[in-house]
Order: sequence, then C-alpha cells, then structure tokens
Amino acid sequence: MTRIFFNEVVTRDGFQIEPGFVPTDDKVALVDALSDCGFAKIEVTSFTSPKAIPMLRDAEEVMGRIRRVPGVEYTVLVPNVRGAERALESRADELNIVMSTSETHNLANLRMPRERSFAGLRDVIALAAGRVPVNVSLSTCFGCPMEGDVPRDEVLRWADRFAALGVRGLTICDTTGMAHPAQVQAMVQALRDRFAGLQLTLHFHNTRGMGLANVLAAVQGGIDRFDGSLGGLGGCPYAPGASGNISSEDAIHMLEAMGHDTGIDLPRLLAVARSLPALLGHDVPGQVAKAGRITDLHPAPEGVAELRRSLA
Amino acid sequence: MTRIFFNEVVTRDGFQIEPGFVPTDDKVALVDALSDCGFAKIEVTSFTSPKAIPMLRDAEEVMGRIRRVPGVEYTVLVPNVRGAERALESRADELNIVMSTSETHNLANLRMPRERSFAGLRDVIALAAGRVPVNVSLSTCFGCPMEGDVPRDEVLRWADRFAALGVRGLTICDTTGMAHPAQVQAMVQALRDRFAGLQLTLHFHNTRGMGLANVLAAVQGGIDRFDGSLGGLGGCPYAPGASGNISSEDAIHMLEAMGHDTGIDLPRLLAVARSLPALLGHDVPGQVAKAGRITDLHPAPEGVAELRRSLA
Repeated sequence: MTRIFFNEVVTRDGFQIEPGFVPTDDKVALVDALSDCGFAKIEVTSFTSPKAIPMLRDAEEVMGRIRRVPGVEYTVLVPNVRGAERALESRADELNIVMSTSETHNLANLRMPRERSFAGLRDVIALAAGRVPVNVSLSTCFGCPMEGDVPRDEVLRWADRFAALGVRGLTICDTTGMAHPAQVQAMVQALRDRFAGLQLTLHFHNTRGMGLANVLAAVQGGIDRFDGSLGGLGGCPYAPGASGNISSEDAIHMLEAMGHDTGIDLPRLLAVARSLPALLGHDVPGQVAKAGRITDLHPAPEGVAELRRSLA
Repeated sequence: MTRIFFNEVVTRDGFQIEPGFVPTDDKVALVDALSDCGFAKIEVTSFTSPKAIPMLRDAEEVMGRIRRVPGVEYTVLVPNVRGAERALESRADELNIVMSTSETHNLANLRMPRERSFAGLRDVIALAAGRVPVNVSLSTCFGCPMEGDVPRDEVLRWADRFAALGVRGLTICDTTGMAHPAQVQAMVQALRDRFAGLQLTLHFHNTRGMGLANVLAAVQGGIDRFDGSLGGLGGCPYAPGASGNISSEDAIHMLEAMGHDTGIDLPRLLAVARSLPALLGHDVPGQVAKAGRITDLHPAPEGVAELRRSLA
C-alpha cells in the first residue's frame, strides 16, 4: 500500500476549455467542495490574460473567495512574470509554470519558441524564490500531436534545465493522450533515477482509453503524485469527441480498490462529481460517478427471491 | 513482445442488448468485415431461444451466410443441448457455454441455480465431444453486482469442474466491470498455476474505467487471450450510462503501441469501428475510433508556419 497524492485540476484545466463561462460563484463553491475531499493540491485557476483565456478571467476573485483548508495547497498556473505577480498577490501556495517539450506544440499553444518560454519562466522562478515553491509542467512529454515522437532525452533535457533553477516539482504531461504503458514505465524509470529530490507528478489524458492503464504503469514504477480532473473534463482540440484528462474519481477509485491510500473521501468526491453535469449542462466522461463504486451493490431482481423459495 | 489473441464478441455480446434489432444483412456484413481484420475468434451469435434474446433470433441465418475465413474460429454461445444441436448444424467451430460463479447472478440471469446450469452444460460438453471444442465463460468472477465479493476459490472450484469435463478453454469474465488490477494479477497467477493446459481468456468490461488497466495487468501476468467488443458495445443493466465491454480496438491499439503483436490490421479495424454509430444510430464508447491512433498526426495550426518564418 502506497500513499498517493492527487492534484485536482478541473477548475483550471477543465474549465478553461468549457464552451460556456462557469459563473464565479460556482467555481468558488466547487473548489470549496473539493477542499473537503482530501486532495493534496487543487489547481484553482490560471493568471493568464483574460483575452487569452476568457473562461478564467475571474482568477483574482476566485482565489480571494475560496475557503483555504489547512493541508491543501492551492496552486495556480502562471504564464509569465505579470501572471506570477497577480498569483502572489492572490496568496497562491504554489506557482505552476508550463511549456512544451515539442517546439511545434509550444509555437501553436504559447505562440513562442521554447527558448523564449524558458527565458520568461526563468524570470518567474526568480520572482518566486524564497516566497512560494514553483512546479513546472512539461507538455507533450509522451508525443506531440503535430511532430509525433518527442525523444525522452529531450524531455529530460528540459527537466534538467528547470531542476537547475530550483523548481520544487516537475509534472510530466501527456497532453493529448499519446502515452502508452510501456512508454510510461521507461519514462518513470528515467525520471526517478534522475530527479529523486523533486516532487514528480504524472499528468495523463484518457484520449485513447489508456489513462488508467498509464496510471497503473506509473504507480508500478514508484510514482505517487498525479494530476486528475473531476469528471474527466479538459481535453485537447486535436481529438474532437474524445475524452479529456483522466477522471480524478475514476483513478482514485481504482487505486483505493487496489489498496492504496489516496487520502480522498471517495463518496464525498463522487457526490461532487455527480453535480458536474447539471453545473455544466452536459454529460462528462467519468465512469464511476455513473456506475457507482465496485462496492456499491444492487438488489437482486424481483423474481430471484421467488425462484429461491421455489427451489428451497 | 508477446503474440496476443483477440476474440471479437460485438455481434453477440454487443448486439444482444442493443435497443433495436440489427438487420441480418448488417450482422453478416459486420462479421465479414471483422473476418478480414485478423481476429483469432469471432463470437458470431447465440443459439438461445428467440423469445429470450429476440435481437439474435436470426442466429441460423447469420451463421449460414457469413464468409468463413481460414484461420478465424467462428464461435457461438449456446445455453443448452437444444442450442448446441442448432450450433452444430450451423457448423460452429466452437461452442461457448456460460454460467455464473455467483448463485444470485445465475438465478437472475439464467433463472436457475448454478448446479442446474452445470448439469445442463455437462450435457452440452458430452454432445460436443469429438466434434467441436467447448469454451466455458464463467461470469462474475471478479465480483457480483448483487452478492459482492466472489471468493477466488469459488471461481477456481467451478473452473476445476469444467476442466475435468474436458473443455478446451476457460474465459474468466468480469461481467459488470468490478475487477481492479491487483485482483486481476492475483487471479491470473492462480489460473496460470492451475490451468496451464487450457486456453485462458480474460473478459473485461470498462464500466468503471479500469478495462485497459486490467488488460495491462493480465498481460503482465502472462495472459495472451482477450475478449473485446467493437466500439465497446455491450454492458450491463446494473450500471446505466456506464461503458460496456472493453473496446476491442482500444485494447488492441494499446497493446500494439506497447510492441505486442495482436495479428490485427488496426487501420482496417478502426474503419469498421467507425461504421458502428451509423449502423446503430447512436454513439459508442470506443475512444481510438474518435481520436485516431497515437501515430495519426495533425497539421500545425495555420499561424505556426508564419511564426516560424518571423523567427527565422
């Protein structure tokens, strides 16, 4: 049995691509509900330009109004120094910075080459030094939907550069669900050998149905931190109709069934997950909220009791 | 790299619970299309009473009209001796018999106690002896949605009884998606120790999102045969809104990505999977048919080329 830590990203990674703006009150209420579920971290929002991501234009207000539960770290995504200043003013517990290991994906997603991203993020790390820890999320570490393979050495090279700047944590992201379990096993081995002193987090998508298989492979390799998104929200514009991030509750349900300790109150989390379709006005991919836990039993159909009696 | 064998069950396990009757022509065309994809077996239909499963009332006609491709075994489900006689007349290559390891599930599903099921299936095995091989599919081996836990020893006890009667194969079914990977690992170990001489097949559902994680755990334990259902059709009346059987194409895609050889022509299989929504009039759970394979790349967005030029 391993203690496994979850970072819930639904209000950032999920809501940023929702077709409709989720009202600020609902965001605050959802973060507050998640705060009582036992997450190690909650990625609350993103301090990007309101023009770039209008769905998260209420970042300050959300951070100002959420209830801070001791033991939960409230982390936020910041793209640059301006975002980091806003995040620090909002008393974020951690800054999460992002860039892609694929040049093409970085150009497409962040509109700049990787080197320029790195230079900007170095300034963010300098600003945060001595104030809050920084986590770097590296995108497309298991493949780029435009370039294809991203060599593992390329991932490790970028990770090295951030490690040298003193980040606390490193999140290896399968941004578009291209990872498979054998690749995860090899990556995890390389990461653990090299970054034993860092918080190592894996971020999977379920785009091609492999999300929980990849979680399993990572846990087998000794990883104990994962990003998850309530309901499996989030996703990727390159795979229309496909699932998004792994569903936090499905991953946690699996790991708890296997005997691991996630620290999560699963019935409470499932109740929160079941509120999502009404909140968003659409179905969500998460399965356990629909099917119930494996321990949630059903009564036998009516005829069975009668059949038993007739046989006794 | 392991050779892994797939049994495609969509036209039996999937279609039997479709809300509408799939026309016989469409069933024949689908089996014929699947025959060219490289499956080891196809479970074509079920020789049950047309009253019990009206969706498969055309079993004889389907079996009579499909094209038999050398190397593919055309197996059918038979519930009793009458069904077995019909299956043999239809030149089935294998008879697949089914009962539950949970008494309550057997009463609910087959309307009789397990001992009566066993006695009837023993007669089917006797009838088939010297003519065609028999496979027994044991339901609810990883848990019963009404009783809960099904002890592993109970599963092994029923498997022993069928092995003693000379069945060729044993399919261990997670009928309602209750298996988790740690349980699969333990079950697979016990099965391989005990039934080394039998064809061992694992049958998983994705009801709670764990389907491919369970396939991974089984492959790690040395299992090389799986049931799968195209599109992830099938399922269970106890989990409304949840996924059904594991999607053949999603499982095959994962195993091929990991370097295993499934013998399947995946692009061809995906083309067949993509025909399902139009055939059935509804969306299906399979993910790879929607998202594409991990090797199916996308062009970079329009602005990227321009951005590259401006930076050069």
